[in-house]
Amino acid sequence: MISKETVELVKKFRDDRDWKRFHNPKDLAISLNLEAAELLEIFQWSADDLECIEKLDKIKEELADVLCYSVLLADRCGLDMDEIIREKMQRNAEKYPVDSAYGNKAKYTELKKRG
Amino acid sequence: MISKETVELVKKFRDDRDWKRFHNPKDLAISLNLEAAELLEIFQWSADDLECIEKLDKIKEELADVLCYSVLLADRCGLDMDEIIREKMQRNAEKYPVDSAYGNKAKYTELKKRG
Amino acid sequence: MISKETVELVKKFRDDRDWKRFHNPKDLAISLNLEAAELLEIFQWSADDLECIEKLDKIKEELADVLCYSVLLADRCGLDMDEIIREKMQRNAEKYPVDSAYGNKAKYTELKKRG
Amino acid sequence: MISKETVELVKKFRDDRDWKRFHNPKDLAISLNLEAAELLEIFQWSADDLECIEKLDKIKEELADVLCYSVLLADRCGLDMDEIIREKMQRNAEKYPVDSAYGNKAKYTELKKRG
Repeated sequence: MISKETVELVKKFRDDRDWKRFHNPKDLAISLNLEAAELLEIFQWSADDLECIEKLDKIKEELADVLCYSVLLADRCGLDMDEIIREKMQRNAEKYPVDSAYGNKAKYTELKKRG
Repeated sequence: MISKETVELVKKFRDDRDWKRFHNPKDLAISLNLEAAELLEIFQWSADDLECIEKLDKIKEELADVLCYSVLLADRCGLDMDEIIREKMQRNAEKYPVDSAYGNKAKYTELKKRG
Repeated sequence: MISKETVELVKKFRDDRDWKRFHNPKDLAISLNLEAAELLEIFQWSADDLECIEKLDKIKEELADVLCYSVLLADRCGLDMDEIIREKMQRNAEKYPVDSAYGNKAKYTELKKRG
Repeated sequence: MISKETVELVKKFRDDRDWKRFHNPKDLAISLNLEAAELLEIFQWSADDLECIEKLDKIKEELADVLCYSVLLADRCGLDMDEIIREKMQRNAEKYPVDSAYGNKAKYTELKKRG
């Protein structure tokens, strides 16, 4: 979970530095992509080592950055993280019915075709 | 915030479909990047419209996807989201002291040089 | 253009360092994404400055990295860059007929709907 | 290689549709990232299948898109692809001397430390 206190901490960090004025949605979306790329970099050249367990500390840091920018984008756009996740899970439940999706990694566009 | 209940909902969705076995950290990091890219796509060709306010519903959905994969990666790697954010904020506070970072969008590597 | 000599140079650089054995398609695709992200980082926080003309040297370097990895992935997969671009342009010409696409930035899935 | 004729074809495609006016560097950099992500999507959930050989046609298409946007960004910024690649290879040769980089996938920042 991400507690209210942690969300407040992230917002306070931003406000203490007067950074809100840089935080337009387009640049926040770019920033989120850059942090996701830093997370991905951990697995560059790892070949079939899908865990990279010795780099767990780095995974921690980069995932934290992704989460921070997610919190900041949600705040900037007036979105409630809990609510948007729940709404998305409902849509996903329709796109991926348990019956056809069980143990199946196909995209919903593929699931449909196979009907 | 993201409540414990919402985290449980995301995990249940995965488990109901027996998807955990596809969820290795490398492919989850890839998935997180793909969802971040879908969020960014909203702003493709928006030029100096940095808000894309008419697409807020799409922002909701794509940010929700980013958050879901973040929850799933944290769970897969045994990480506590609250804890890793708090640890990262402490490191960031050292990299970006209020004094030099106030109203300044420079990266910490640049802040240092100018120090 | 990218000349045959330049392609050879890129391949020689790789072979001089015995790096081909790290170059599986999945990790090359990851690398291409990381370099694309470094290019994007140039525009992080640029708000409505869509040119970032003062950072042209950085754009040069990062675009070059994207091109190098594209050359390496094409080589690894046995693809002829000239040929695949030409084939894609033909497909795109069908997806984006001049009539409906002229001066229109809509995606082809949108163009269709509007018919 | 990418021939002059192919570069001209890509530019003609753009100009026939009057798309140059949408092509600012920031949005082109975003587009390049989106196409790189579509390439990466091919390997999502492939786990330790690092080739995805059965999806070669999809790799062709997505790599072609990455190359097209690279051509368009180079054109928009007045950059000569051949030249920027050659310049970058020279810089890389300094960062990755054959001696220390041979058969070694470490980043140059790591190579230095181990120096």
